[in-house]
Amino acid sequence: MNLLLIQGANMEYLGKRQPEIYGTTTAAELDALLTQEAKRRNVGLEIRYTNTEGEAISWIFDAERRGIAGLLMNPAGFVHAGYALRDCWYAIQMPVIEIHMSNIDKRHIKSVTAEAARGMVMGLGVQSYLVAIDAMVRVLSAGKTTGA
Amino acid sequence: MNLLLIQGANMEYLGKRQPEIYGTTTAAELDALLTQEAKRRNVGLEIRYTNTEGEAISWIFDAERRGIAGLLMNPAGFVHAGYALRDCWYAIQMPVIEIHMSNIDKRHIKSVTAEAARGMVMGLGVQSYLVAIDAMVRVLSAGKTTGA
Amino acid sequence: MNLLLIQGANMEYLGKRQPEIYGTTTAAELDALLTQEAKRRNVGLEIRYTNTEGEAISWIFDAERRGIAGLLMNPAGFVHAGYALRDCWYAIQMPVIEIHMSNIDKRHIKSVTAEAARGMVMGLGVQSYLVAIDAMVRVLSAGKTTGA
Amino acid sequence: MNLLLIQGANMEYLGKRQPEIYGTTTAAELDALLTQEAKRRNVGLEIRYTNTEGEAISWIFDAERRGIAGLLMNPAGFVHAGYALRDCWYAIQMPVIEIHMSNIDKRHIKSVTAEAARGMVMGLGVQSYLVAIDAMVRVLSAGKTTGA
Amino acid sequence: MNLLLIQGANMEYLGKRQPEIYGTTTAAELDALLTQEAKRRNVGLEIRYTNTEGEAISWIFDAERRGIAGLLMNPAGFVHAGYALRDCWYAIQMPVIEIHMSNIDKRHIKSVTAEAARGMVMGLGVQSYLVAIDAMVRVLSAGKTTGA
Amino acid sequence: MNLLLIQGANMEYLGKRQPEIYGTTTAAELDALLTQEAKRRNVGLEIRYTNTEGEAISWIFDAERRGIAGLLMNPAGFVHAGYALRDCWYAIQMPVIEIHMSNIDKRHIKSVTAEAARGMVMGLGVQSYLVAIDAMVRVLSAGKTTGA
Amino acid sequence: MNLLLIQGANMEYLGKRQPEIYGTTTAAELDALLTQEAKRRNVGLEIRYTNTEGEAISWIFDAERRGIAGLLMNPAGFVHAGYALRDCWYAIQMPVIEIHMSNIDKRHIKSVTAEAARGMVMGLGVQSYLVAIDAMVRVLSAGKTTGA
Amino acid sequence: MNLLLIQGANMEYLGKRQPEIYGTTTAAELDALLTQEAKRRNVGLEIRYTNTEGEAISWIFDAERRGIAGLLMNPAGFVHAGYALRDCWYAIQMPVIEIHMSNIDKRHIKSVTAEAARGMVMGLGVQSYLVAIDAMVRVLSAGKTTGA
Amino acid sequence: MNLLLIQGANMEYLGKRQPEIYGTTTAAELDALLTQEAKRRNVGLEIRYTNTEGEAISWIFDAERRGIAGLLMNPAGFVHAGYALRDCWYAIQMPVIEIHMSNIDKRHIKSVTAEAARGMVMGLGVQSYLVAIDAMVRVLSAGKTTGA
Amino acid sequence: MNLLLIQGANMEYLGKRQPEIYGTTTAAELDALLTQEAKRRNVGLEIRYTNTEGEAISWIFDAERRGIAGLLMNPAGFVHAGYALRDCWYAIQMPVIEIHMSNIDKRHIKSVTAEAARGMVMGLGVQSYLVAIDAMVRVLSAGKTTGA
Amino acid sequence: MNLLLIQGANMEYLGKRQPEIYGTTTAAELDALLTQEAKRRNVGLEIRYTNTEGEAISWIFDAERRGIAGLLMNPAGFVHAGYALRDCWYAIQMPVIEIHMSNIDKRHIKSVTAEAARGMVMGLGVQSYLVAIDAMVRVLSAGKTTGA
Amino acid sequence: MNLLLIQGANMEYLGKRQPEIYGTTTAAELDALLTQEAKRRNVGLEIRYTNTEGEAISWIFDAERRGIAGLLMNPAGFVHAGYALRDCWYAIQMPVIEIHMSNIDKRHIKSVTAEAARGMVMGLGVQSYLVAIDAMVRVLSAGKTTGA
Repeated sequence: MNLLLIQGANMEYLGKRQPEIYGTTTAAELDALLTQEAKRRNVGLEIRYTNTEGEAISWIFDAERRGIAGLLMNPAGFVHAGYALRDCWYAIQMPVIEIHMSNIDKRHIKSVTAEAARGMVMGLGVQSYLVAIDAMVRVLSAGKTTGA
Repeated sequence: MNLLLIQGANMEYLGKRQPEIYGTTTAAELDALLTQEAKRRNVGLEIRYTNTEGEAISWIFDAERRGIAGLLMNPAGFVHAGYALRDCWYAIQMPVIEIHMSNIDKRHIKSVTAEAARGMVMGLGVQSYLVAIDAMVRVLSAGKTTGA
Repeated sequence: MNLLLIQGANMEYLGKRQPEIYGTTTAAELDALLTQEAKRRNVGLEIRYTNTEGEAISWIFDAERRGIAGLLMNPAGFVHAGYALRDCWYAIQMPVIEIHMSNIDKRHIKSVTAEAARGMVMGLGVQSYLVAIDAMVRVLSAGKTTGA
Repeated sequence: MNLLLIQGANMEYLGKRQPEIYGTTTAAELDALLTQEAKRRNVGLEIRYTNTEGEAISWIFDAERRGIAGLLMNPAGFVHAGYALRDCWYAIQMPVIEIHMSNIDKRHIKSVTAEAARGMVMGLGVQSYLVAIDAMVRVLSAGKTTGA
Repeated sequence: MNLLLIQGANMEYLGKRQPEIYGTTTAAELDALLTQEAKRRNVGLEIRYTNTEGEAISWIFDAERRGIAGLLMNPAGFVHAGYALRDCWYAIQMPVIEIHMSNIDKRHIKSVTAEAARGMVMGLGVQSYLVAIDAMVRVLSAGKTTGA
Repeated sequence: MNLLLIQGANMEYLGKRQPEIYGTTTAAELDALLTQEAKRRNVGLEIRYTNTEGEAISWIFDAERRGIAGLLMNPAGFVHAGYALRDCWYAIQMPVIEIHMSNIDKRHIKSVTAEAARGMVMGLGVQSYLVAIDAMVRVLSAGKTTGA
Repeated sequence: MNLLLIQGANMEYLGKRQPEIYGTTTAAELDALLTQEAKRRNVGLEIRYTNTEGEAISWIFDAERRGIAGLLMNPAGFVHAGYALRDCWYAIQMPVIEIHMSNIDKRHIKSVTAEAARGMVMGLGVQSYLVAIDAMVRVLSAGKTTGA
Repeated sequence: MNLLLIQGANMEYLGKRQPEIYGTTTAAELDALLTQEAKRRNVGLEIRYTNTEGEAISWIFDAERRGIAGLLMNPAGFVHAGYALRDCWYAIQMPVIEIHMSNIDKRHIKSVTAEAARGMVMGLGVQSYLVAIDAMVRVLSAGKTTGA
Repeated sequence: MNLLLIQGANMEYLGKRQPEIYGTTTAAELDALLTQEAKRRNVGLEIRYTNTEGEAISWIFDAERRGIAGLLMNPAGFVHAGYALRDCWYAIQMPVIEIHMSNIDKRHIKSVTAEAARGMVMGLGVQSYLVAIDAMVRVLSAGKTTGA
Repeated sequence: MNLLLIQGANMEYLGKRQPEIYGTTTAAELDALLTQEAKRRNVGLEIRYTNTEGEAISWIFDAERRGIAGLLMNPAGFVHAGYALRDCWYAIQMPVIEIHMSNIDKRHIKSVTAEAARGMVMGLGVQSYLVAIDAMVRVLSAGKTTGA
Repeated sequence: MNLLLIQGANMEYLGKRQPEIYGTTTAAELDALLTQEAKRRNVGLEIRYTNTEGEAISWIFDAERRGIAGLLMNPAGFVHAGYALRDCWYAIQMPVIEIHMSNIDKRHIKSVTAEAARGMVMGLGVQSYLVAIDAMVRVLSAGKTTGA
Repeated sequence: MNLLLIQGANMEYLGKRQPEIYGTTTAAELDALLTQEAKRRNVGLEIRYTNTEGEAISWIFDAERRGIAGLLMNPAGFVHAGYALRDCWYAIQMPVIEIHMSNIDKRHIKSVTAEAARGMVMGLGVQSYLVAIDAMVRVLSAGKTTGA
């Protein structure tokens, strides 16, 4: 079971960017943490960062062609106007779980992509990623989720 | 570590209510599943159903007084206008994780309570509850979540 | 054929409450009138009053379990924000006919529940209830209404 | 007691038009059904179809001059922007009952004419017309409706 | 100098229609008053009533072809959604003065046609028509109005 | 019969200000024109200019105390947010006729004061003032306007 | 002179709930303070807490039947969507004074009940209750308030 | 293959109406051009003009009864509020192609009918009609359009 | 303890202005009443009237420089658009209590200044002023209000 | 005559992406079809796909510098928020024809780019591209389109 | 080259007013700083403060009559509803540069005057004034700004 | 002191793009002008153009890592929906000054990035860039701007 995690616009600056919201864990530290968790669960995990929405879209179509089983994505800066990304998610077959470190409702942010995801995990800081891996494994193990 | 799960308005009808959205698992079956999972994780789990927002609020204050560690809640029918419930969540100290079985963004539903929760898990059907327990355990274990 | 009529928030004060809008017939007089009409038509009619939306919801699920054939309801004070009630109506199988004594459009009131009802009768004062009984009998006699 | 029923824009195509919403009863069949019901109740019923809002308005003023007792009208296509028709209803003395075959709230349609009607019956398919005749007879028999 | 006055939807019912707003002068009495005023000023005045927006439009194009010098029009019922009428006014060369008997701002009515008129006189009851004739004569006498 | 004409904010610059909208007649020339017209009609006319809304309000209360019969006012720059002026017009007994040289609807300007006026004349350039004097004389001569 | 004070949703948690907004006085301490003030003024004061809107409504109708002279109420959590409570206030005869400890405008909260109250006191913390008692005594002493 | 082209409100004035938007080709010249193109393609083409929405609707139902294969229509003045026309298009079976000479998006015009058409051609002046004939021939030749 | 009371736009006309809303007590009578109450409480009270927002602002800065302890203000006509006044209240240190004689929520008026006040008293007619003096004395006596 | 066709975000997935909306023709098959049609008409046609808006913009400026005669573009995923693309279209001289396979009005999609195009063809599936080539040839042959 | 700087409502309180936003430089210190800078650049600078919008307008017309070359203005409290001021700026010939010390976008403030200015400098605290003088000198030196 | 100037989408076409708004100075000429000014002030200035928002973001993070002191940016085509860019500005430490050649308020354009900038200079054509350099030098020289 191979997963792709895409970190959207500005995530490369994690740890330096508004630490009162996003904490002080850097992108490199987060990657190490997730790679370790994936290994523990025996799941393949590919992590990519981009600031360009179109690049993310190209990677996603490519991932589906390569047989990746599920997409985890923190749209980050694309959350506000990533309509093309949303349409991309509608276009593919693999399930998508959207991730946010902060509680976006508390910050009055409306995600334009969320409606095209299978589900969402938000508000738990770095833990959001770990919980999302747990969620994706459950979704893929259950096939078509009962009662979704 | 004792948790309280409150099922909001209309959840007592789970399994019979719009199964194309909520699946065919009944409330009783869900309770059994969750109780078993809690036992496996060695967590205390109390499950309550109510159709009245004020009753949920009273239970929550009572739970905090009793020292319950965390609140899991599917606001269900209160998602649209549960402002008093939202104010209640702001009033308490224990973390709240909001749960939805369906992807509420896909259904164009705006949760008025979400801004007062620590985080949210949604869109994974019955799995949303299991993932939410995983999330709450992580939150409580980490103390103040890093990077939330 | 047994029907349940639920009178929503503030209906207990009928006859004393804004008589220029709702007339001077009291709740007790209205109940007598409707009971008599039901008897004339050989229909069972149970009438209940509540000021609490959640209590109404619980009664409705209970009614469906008991095999009540149809629900007549004047949402009254729940008309403005009764989203949980609306979701309840979507959850059940029995048809619902929404009743209003006054013309709510004329008063610029938007019913949030109406979209989940089978139909609505409004604006005819006390007569709205009698016409609604007539409507429910027709709906139940015709099975799935032709051309609805 | 003579009534006028006006069928608004597109009703001439009843039975052929979106049968999943409006059923398969044709305009001619509906007319026969209503004429029979009127005869049974000993009420005069004149039925007219028009696609032009102004023509409907002219007929209504003419009907009031001729002493017609009440107007039944399905505004149909005029429901969205029939402001002139609404003003006409305000201008006349005879009561108006607005009719819709479908539940317009469920279809998220806002009737601009409803505020000028005495009342409305909707959502019951072909039965809406029969219930509306019943309602109009009650309104006219009661004189000024008690508690309207 | 020949003028055309068109009375829009529902004006045929003047005197009978909501007299607390529009007074008790009938359409016939108004016509007599205006004809007399026109004669006094030596102006040709043609008065027409219609409930159909398209008919008004056809008359206006016809009037321009016949060389009528100016159009006086009370859009009446077309005030709310008469976009086609508005486009017609933009299409013609002759000046239009829009007339309302009541103060439409006080009634919170937005005229969709007003932006295409040369000017407007409103709020003066029957006097609005007399003032509008005065205004049109001034406009036509001044040629292109100074400082318009 | 004595009238007060108040010219609102920026009117002192008439003739120099956006002449493509307001023409080239200066404030002084306009005053001469209106004074002459008032003399011809045997009406007293007092003309005042102010850029301060509160000053206009003080003058209006003063005018009513002095027995001025009617107020003509071009709110000009106060048209957009002159709510205090609007409340003042509601407070007084004498009739107010609002004047605009340009067609404010065509310029997509909403007058917040208009709802408190007896009527309005607009869009006729300098002629708007002359027509407004005509209108005020008719209103005051007729006492309570017939059919207003 | 007997008064009823109802504390709405979440007020039972006063002193523990967001003390930066609501202070540290507990519900019990507040009750003691108010009871003492009522005694000093020789007024009967009954204090009740509820988290359920419908329960508050039932108490209000009951209070009016028992002859309570005036209602003091902090809608608290019901302030956002308490439309049924608002309709209840319209239904009763006794005056209502709405109370808020915080300045709700500063917090951008719109009270849906306020339009049905006689008046409101807000923003003065615990003092809001004492001032409201003063206000109610004045209202009841003056009978129909002069200049309300 | 017979087509019906309906020209909506104000199109009879083509060539004289706002030539900076619609050009100087007159209605008669356009008809000649289109008739010639239809002949060249061996397609029957009937062209009708109306200023009344209801008349257009009646023609459309009549055309479908007569077996016309496709409807070309420039809604023109009906574009803003032609909801009844839109419902008519939903009611019929034959494909509709909506035509505009100007780019309506550039003019910030929202077509209320477009959602009920098969497709639209706009912004190409007189050429829009020729392109629309080309489009309709392709649609009718292909039967159900691939990938529509 | 010296207080300043500013009466905003149109208050000079109190007693004559819309007495069905504001009562028949004149400005002079109100001043006498308040002066007497201030004397009874041993509080200095300066009362000023203005129709100009900027003049009120200048008085307020002057009052703060002079050491006035608190500001009572009925913004009256400034309630709708008094943003500069609101900014002024944010700029000063002394507490402000906003006063309204009528229930502004009932009249669907939104106060733009209220968010910058310490608190508000409204809806009690002339009594609103007396209650506001009581409130200000409590605020100033308590220093920083507990639980505000 | 050389044309450039740009396929916007997600078009590379044509045929696999939501086939119920976009059909089963793949991007490669579409390219073949269009190349053949271009050859038949003796027109040069260059086809490019991109998921990145900025890349499309760079290609467009480059195309104008290279002397490409006209731009055909299906903005696809850029339709929702492609404001930079819209500004680019305003910046260039060559005509743009916007293409959509589906009827975007029916899907309640608002194109933010359309206002900057010369015209649009939509709703005809794969045929939309063929009709758009026809339209562009007409536009370029006619020079400045008559009556655009 | 003589310039006029007008400081709008509440600026007289600079240094005491919300120092976390506006800093601690007082109005007198700012004036000294700007006078010195003007002297250094050999520019005449007149500085005036007002809390009344109408007074600002009168000064501006007066300045233009006196031949002042350019207007620098911090609308301050007039930024929210200074429509009359905006119309004044449109009326004059001299260029206006609007100044704000804070970043008004960050504070979610919409300037209603900005559309009538030549340009704006904001967000730089006291430096905003110095930069604005630099900007005005460049504008006046360049005559009609290239590429504005 | 080294600065980075980024020119957003479509700026590469400066001089050819809508010269009535942006003037005829080309991108190359502007670069020469700014380089010369930077040299004169002894400031390092790096100028880059991009049509892709994500590329701009990557450059900005890179610049901060390289120790660039301040960012000047004309978001140009990103002004409408550049939310990811805005979030990037919030993420970095160096000050940002946003530049626009035209007065964006006059064009009714809302900048979504401006709230994250330190300040803005707009409306002065090519001069906006020169003034912005002046502003940035002042900001960096003053350290934390006084009174920002």
